[in-house]
Amino acid sequence: MKDIIQVGVIGYGYWGPNLVRNFMGVAGAKVIAVSDLNPESLPKVQSRYPSVQVTTRTQDLLENPQIDAIVIATPVSTHFDLAWAALQAGKHVFVEKPFTATAEQAIQLIKEAARRNLVLMVDHTFIYTGAVRKIRELVTQNDLGEIYYYDSVRINLGLFQPDVNVIWDLAVHDLAIMDYVLSPLQPIAVSATGMKHISGGLEDIAYLTLFFNNNLIAHLHVNWLAPVKIRYTLLGGSKRMLVYNDLEPSETVKVYDKGITVTANSEQMYRMRIDYRAGDMWSPQVDRTEALQTEALHFIYCIQNNESPITDGKAGLRVVRILEAATQSLFSQGNPIELTSIREPEMGLDSPKYAYKKPQVVSEVAASPKIR
Amino acid sequence: MKDIIQVGVIGYGYWGPNLVRNFMGVAGAKVIAVSDLNPESLPKVQSRYPSVQVTTRTQDLLENPQIDAIVIATPVSTHFDLAWAALQAGKHVFVEKPFTATAEQAIQLIKEAARRNLVLMVDHTFIYTGAVRKIRELVTQNDLGEIYYYDSVRINLGLFQPDVNVIWDLAVHDLAIMDYVLSPLQPIAVSATGMKHISGGLEDIAYLTLFFNNNLIAHLHVNWLAPVKIRYTLLGGSKRMLVYNDLEPSETVKVYDKGITVTANSEQMYRMRIDYRAGDMWSPQVDRTEALQTEALHFIYCIQNNESPITDGKAGLRVVRILEAATQSLFSQGNPIELTSIREPEMGLDSPKYAYKKPQVVSEVAASPKIR
Amino acid sequence: MKDIIQVGVIGYGYWGPNLVRNFMGVAGAKVIAVSDLNPESLPKVQSRYPSVQVTTRTQDLLENPQIDAIVIATPVSTHFDLAWAALQAGKHVFVEKPFTATAEQAIQLIKEAARRNLVLMVDHTFIYTGAVRKIRELVTQNDLGEIYYYDSVRINLGLFQPDVNVIWDLAVHDLAIMDYVLSPLQPIAVSATGMKHISGGLEDIAYLTLFFNNNLIAHLHVNWLAPVKIRYTLLGGSKRMLVYNDLEPSETVKVYDKGITVTANSEQMYRMRIDYRAGDMWSPQVDRTEALQTEALHFIYCIQNNESPITDGKAGLRVVRILEAATQSLFSQGNPIELTSIREPEMGLDSPKYAYKKPQVVSEVAASPKIR
Amino acid sequence: MKDIIQVGVIGYGYWGPNLVRNFMGVAGAKVIAVSDLNPESLPKVQSRYPSVQVTTRTQDLLENPQIDAIVIATPVSTHFDLAWAALQAGKHVFVEKPFTATAEQAIQLIKEAARRNLVLMVDHTFIYTGAVRKIRELVTQNDLGEIYYYDSVRINLGLFQPDVNVIWDLAVHDLAIMDYVLSPLQPIAVSATGMKHISGGLEDIAYLTLFFNNNLIAHLHVNWLAPVKIRYTLLGGSKRMLVYNDLEPSETVKVYDKGITVTANSEQMYRMRIDYRAGDMWSPQVDRTEALQTEALHFIYCIQNNESPITDGKAGLRVVRILEAATQSLFSQGNPIELTSIREPEMGLDSPKYAYKKPQVVSEVAASPKIR
Repeated sequence: MKDIIQVGVIGYGYWGPNLVRNFMGVAGAKVIAVSDLNPESLPKVQSRYPSVQVTTRTQDLLENPQIDAIVIATPVSTHFDLAWAALQAGKHVFVEKPFTATAEQAIQLIKEAARRNLVLMVDHTFIYTGAVRKIRELVTQNDLGEIYYYDSVRINLGLFQPDVNVIWDLAVHDLAIMDYVLSPLQPIAVSATGMKHISGGLEDIAYLTLFFNNNLIAHLHVNWLAPVKIRYTLLGGSKRMLVYNDLEPSETVKVYDKGITVTANSEQMYRMRIDYRAGDMWSPQVDRTEALQTEALHFIYCIQNNESPITDGKAGLRVVRILEAATQSLFSQGNPIELTSIREPEMGLDSPKYAYKKPQVVSEVAASPKIR
Repeated sequence: MKDIIQVGVIGYGYWGPNLVRNFMGVAGAKVIAVSDLNPESLPKVQSRYPSVQVTTRTQDLLENPQIDAIVIATPVSTHFDLAWAALQAGKHVFVEKPFTATAEQAIQLIKEAARRNLVLMVDHTFIYTGAVRKIRELVTQNDLGEIYYYDSVRINLGLFQPDVNVIWDLAVHDLAIMDYVLSPLQPIAVSATGMKHISGGLEDIAYLTLFFNNNLIAHLHVNWLAPVKIRYTLLGGSKRMLVYNDLEPSETVKVYDKGITVTANSEQMYRMRIDYRAGDMWSPQVDRTEALQTEALHFIYCIQNNESPITDGKAGLRVVRILEAATQSLFSQGNPIELTSIREPEMGLDSPKYAYKKPQVVSEVAASPKIR
Repeated sequence: MKDIIQVGVIGYGYWGPNLVRNFMGVAGAKVIAVSDLNPESLPKVQSRYPSVQVTTRTQDLLENPQIDAIVIATPVSTHFDLAWAALQAGKHVFVEKPFTATAEQAIQLIKEAARRNLVLMVDHTFIYTGAVRKIRELVTQNDLGEIYYYDSVRINLGLFQPDVNVIWDLAVHDLAIMDYVLSPLQPIAVSATGMKHISGGLEDIAYLTLFFNNNLIAHLHVNWLAPVKIRYTLLGGSKRMLVYNDLEPSETVKVYDKGITVTANSEQMYRMRIDYRAGDMWSPQVDRTEALQTEALHFIYCIQNNESPITDGKAGLRVVRILEAATQSLFSQGNPIELTSIREPEMGLDSPKYAYKKPQVVSEVAASPKIR
Repeated sequence: MKDIIQVGVIGYGYWGPNLVRNFMGVAGAKVIAVSDLNPESLPKVQSRYPSVQVTTRTQDLLENPQIDAIVIATPVSTHFDLAWAALQAGKHVFVEKPFTATAEQAIQLIKEAARRNLVLMVDHTFIYTGAVRKIRELVTQNDLGEIYYYDSVRINLGLFQPDVNVIWDLAVHDLAIMDYVLSPLQPIAVSATGMKHISGGLEDIAYLTLFFNNNLIAHLHVNWLAPVKIRYTLLGGSKRMLVYNDLEPSETVKVYDKGITVTANSEQMYRMRIDYRAGDMWSPQVDRTEALQTEALHFIYCIQNNESPITDGKAGLRVVRILEAATQSLFSQGNPIELTSIREPEMGLDSPKYAYKKPQVVSEVAASPKIR
C-alpha cells in the first residue's frame, strides 16, 4: 500500500481550487501537478502552492509516472476523453459531476476501470456531508418507515451555464443525494418539464418527477432565475417525515414524528378512517466536516485498499441516465420516459453492494476515511 | 335596486359558518335561512343567529320568495344540481370552489345564468385578499416585466378528502390565483404527476406544469402529507421577481429588483453576455380586510348593479377545465393534455373583459365593493 | 360540591369577551351576568348570549345570590376595590393581571380571601399554555440542570396604555411565567431601565434585570414601539438550553443539548479548560388547548374542591412586588432595588406549596382540570 | 505621497491571518513582515506568503526602516505598550479592538500620535460593512426621524475569553457601531448588569443600558452561553424603524414605515390621541465587499493623504470609556455610571468632525477608499 497518493488535477477554474486545497490538506495525498488550458489560471496555483508543477498541457500530467491519480475538474463535455486517457495511462480517476455527457460514455469508463482494476470515483459532493449521511442512516434504520415521497427544491439567481441546462447543473446534486438515500430503490421512469427564457440559452427552470416500482414518488425543482435562494428536501415516510435544509446552519436535518394512520372504520365498514399524528420534532446533530475533505480521504482510502467508492462509476451512471431521460422528456413537455431499458445486470445497477449494510455511526466515521 | 339582498345558505359544514358570518356582517346583505342535510348542524346556527330560519330541506330555501340569492357550501359533486335548481328558481348563485365536477356542467350553468340574467359567482376566496389584488396590480402595471414563470407550493399535513384528490382540494386555490394574476394569459396544456399512498384513497401529492403560448411556465405543488406547512408563490419576470407567502403575517408580498440582462458580447460576437442584477427588495403593505368580507360585498354589488363578478362562472370554468385535464394527465404519468380543445369563443375564455382595465388602488377599493 | 359554578363577569372591554366565552364553554361553569360601565358594550353580550343578564351596575352582580364567583376584567386601578367588595359579598374571585396596583393591596386581598376561605385566583394566562407547562416540567425534572439565566423579549408595535407603563402591561406576562417556571427560586433584587417617548405618556420601552441568591440572572425586554413582533425566552442551564418562541406555531419549545464543560487543565494546572458541547435539538409536542379554557377549568376545580390555584393571590403578589420595585428602579436609571424587604413568612412567598411536586404529564392534564 | 505602504503585522493568532490577507490584497499596501511570540505560528505565514519575513521578535518590526505602518493583532492587555513603541519608532498604527485596556491609555496614544502626526486607527470592523454604512446614511438623511432607541442582541455559544469579560469581547462591536451610527449623539451614563457562571471565569452574559441627553435610550445584550446564534439591532425613530440582522445574507437591513403619531384629541382636550401607522417595508441592497478590505484601503488612504480615519483613536477612546464604565456598573448590579466626567474638549469627543457630512452613496464609495 502506497503511503502517499500523488495527485494531478486537470482544470483550475471554479471547482478546481477546492479540489487542490482538499487533496493538499488530507493525510495520504499530495497534489504534485495542475494543468489548465488557460495560462492565466496557473500563477494562482504557483503563488499558493509553490511546490506544485503547473502546465497548460494535459499530456504532461498523463505522462508523469509520479502521478497515481488524476482529478478532472473540467466541463462535462471533456470528461469522457480525459477520464479515458487517464485510465489508459494507468491512473486512478476522480471526475467532477456530472460524470459524463451520456450514459454510453459512463458505461465505457466503468468497464475500462474495472478491466484495469483502477478506482473510478464521481464527485457527488453532497453524499459526503454529515447531513446526507445522517439521512441515509435514518432511512436504513427504518426510522421513517416506508418512504412515500422525496421532494427537493434547489433554486436561486444562479450562474447560467452556456453548455448544460439547469437539470445537468443543479438537479444532478439532488439525483445523486436521492440515489444514495433511497438505495437500493431506483426510479423506473421520469417526466420532466421546463422552459428557456434566454434567447440562445438552455432551460433555466425545470421540474422532474420520478416514478418507482411502488407508490414512492420523487420530484425535483431547479431554477437559475429565482429571487431567493431556497434549498430543501422533504422526505415523507409511513412512520416519520424529514426536512433537510442545506442552508440552515444549525438545524440542517429535522425529523418530525408526524403522519397518518389508516384504520378500518367500525361504523362505516366500507370507509377507512384516517387519524392524524403530530408528535415531537428532533434535529440530530450532524458532522460538520467539509464534505470535500471526507470525499478526498475516501478516494485515497479506496485506492490504497483496492475498494470501490460509494460514488463509483455506477452511481455516476445511474445519475447520468436520469439526466439523459429527463432532457428527453423535457422536449415532449412531460411525456414520461422509461429508465429500465438501459439497465444492465453487469453494471450492477439493481443491487448496489452497499445497499443493505448498516452505515457506521457518525462518530466512528470521523475516525476513519471509510465511511460506508 | 334592492337595498338588502336576502341570502339563503345551503350547507353548514366546514366553510358554511364563515359564509354565514360574513353575509350577516356586510352592509346590503342578510342571511335569512340556512339548510343542512345533517340536523345536528342546525342548532349551532340557531344559537348563534336566533333570527335565521333553519331546515334540513334544501327545497325550503329554493321555494322561499324572500330569498334573492343562494350560497352553496356543499361537496363539489352536488354543486351542479343545486346551482341549476337555484337558477331555475330565479335566484342569484354563489358557489363554493371548485365550481363544478366537470367543465361541461360549468358551461351549462354559465349559459343558464346568462339566459336568465342572474349573477353567478364562484368562491375563489384568495382573489379577494389584499395580497393577491396587490400582485395583480403589480403585474398589470408591468412592474415585473414579461412574466417568465409562476411557481407555487401549498403543502401541509392536511385533511384527506374522501371525494376529491389533492388537486381538486388544494391546487384549485393556486389555479384561481394564477388565472386572476396572469389574465389574460391562459395555459394551453398541462402535464401532471402525482401519487396515492392510502389504500382506497385518492392522490395525496401532485405536481402540475402548465404551458402557455409563449415561454411562460407555471408549476403547482400540492401535498396533504407534508410535515411542515409551506405556502409560497414565486413570480419571475424580466424586470423584477416576487415572492408571495400567505403564512407570513407582515411581509406577505416581497418584490425583488433582481434579474438578468442579456447583451451581445462584443468580444465574442456569437455568444451572449449575461449580467446579474441584485437591487433593493420592497414589501408593500397590503389590505388586511378578511377576503370573504370583500367577496360578499362584491357579490351583493354585482346583484344590485347587474354586473358580472370578477370570479364569475367563466373564471370557475377556466379553473375546472384545468383540474379535469390535470387529473387526466395524472393517469398517464405526466403526458401533457391540451387545454385548447375546450375553448369556446362564446364562453369568452380568450378575452376576459376585465383583462386590460387597470385595477383601482387598494385605498379606493376599501371605499367601494366594486374591486375591479 | 356544587355542580355548576355560576359566574358574574365585571368588564366587557378587550379581554372580557374571551373570559365570558371560556367560562361559558367549560363544563361546571356558567356565566349568568355581565356588567360594564359603558352601556354600549352590553348589546354585544346580549346578541351573543341571550340568556345572560346585563347591567351597568356592578352592584347588581355583587348582590346577586345566584352568583358564586366574580371575574374581574377591568383596569388595574379598580382591581382592589372590586375584588375586596366581591370577597365581602362572599364570592370567589378571579382577577385580570396585573393582580393589583400595589403589593400592599395584594396582601390585604390574600388575607381576606384566606379568612373567608374563598378562592382568589389571578389570570396569569400563559401559565396555562401547554408550552409553559412543558417548560416547567423540564425544569422540575432537572433536564436543563442548574439554571444559569432566564432571558425574554416581548416587543411589537403595541397599544399604548394610558394608565400603566410597558412593564405593567407586558413584563407582567414574563414575570408570571418566570415565577412559575423557576419556582421555588425567587429574585432578591431588580434593576430596571426604560424611557418615555410620548409627551405625557408613560415608559414605552423597558429592560429589567433580576438577581437571585445564586448565579442565576433574569432579564426582560419589553417595548411598545418595535417594528416587528418578537417574543422569545431563552433558558440556559448547566445541562441543556431551551428556546421558547410563543409566535412559532409548530416548534414552540426547542431544547438544545448544548453547553460547556469546565475541567481542570492538566497541562496548565492554574487554568481551567472549557469544552463546548453541541448535540441534538429536540422540540417536544405541546398541548394546544386554549390556555383560558384550561385556566377556567382550574378555577372551577379549585372552588369545587376548596383548593388553592397555581396562580393564587400569592403568585399575583410575587409579580406585583417586582413590578413595583422595577418601576422604582426605573426612576433611578437602573439602581438596583431589593425585593427581600417585603417578604413575609405568613404570605408563604418563600415556599410555594407546589414547588416540589412533579407535574402530571400533559396527556393526564388534558383529562383533568387539576393541572399541578 | 508614497505609492506602496509597507506593513508589519504583530500577532498571527485568530484575527492576524485576516489582516495579513487583506493588507496583502489591496492596492497601495504590502505586508513585508509578521511577528508572533509563538514560533509555531510562523511556518503558516511562510508557506502562504513566501516573500514575507517572519520573526518572534517584535523589535525586528519596530526597527525595520522599510516598515511604514504597524498592525497590532494581539491581546488587549498588550495594545498600549506595542502601539506606544510603534509610535515612538515613527510608524503609523492600526490596532485591533478593543483599542486599549483603559481610557487613560487611549488618551495617551491619541496625544502621542497627534504630536508625531502619525495615523492611529482602531479596527472597528463592522463600521466598514455596507450594511452599517447604509444605516449611517439613512440616519444622517433623517429617514428615521428623531431616534428613539438603539437595541442590539449579540449572542451565541461563544468562545470564553480568559482575559476579558463578554462586554469587552462582544459589546465592543455594538458600541463601535452605535458610536458611528448615532454620531454626534453620545451617551452620558451607563447601567450594566451581568453574571459569571464559570468558577474562576469572567462575566459571560451582560446587559448594558446607555442614557443620552434626550429621550434616546440604547441597550445591548451579549451572551457567550446562548444555544442559538442571534444578532440583530433595532433602531426606532419617530418617522421609521429599522432592523439590522447581520446573519441574514440577503435582507440585512430592513426599513419599516411604521410608527405612531400623537395628536391632540379634539373630544378630550386633556388627552392625546395615538395613531398607529403601518406602511411598506423596504430592504436596500448593501455593498457586500469584505469589510476588512474597505478598512485596509481606508487606513492606507489616510496615511497617504495625512487624514484622520473614521475609526480613529478618539472613536476607540469613546468605546473604551463605555467598556470601563459598564464594567464598573456591573459590580454594583446596575448602578448607573456617568460618562461625562472623562470627556475632554481637547479630545474632541463632543464633536466628531465627520458628524454633519452627508456620506457618499455606496456606489461612489466603491470607487474610492475614502468612505466618509
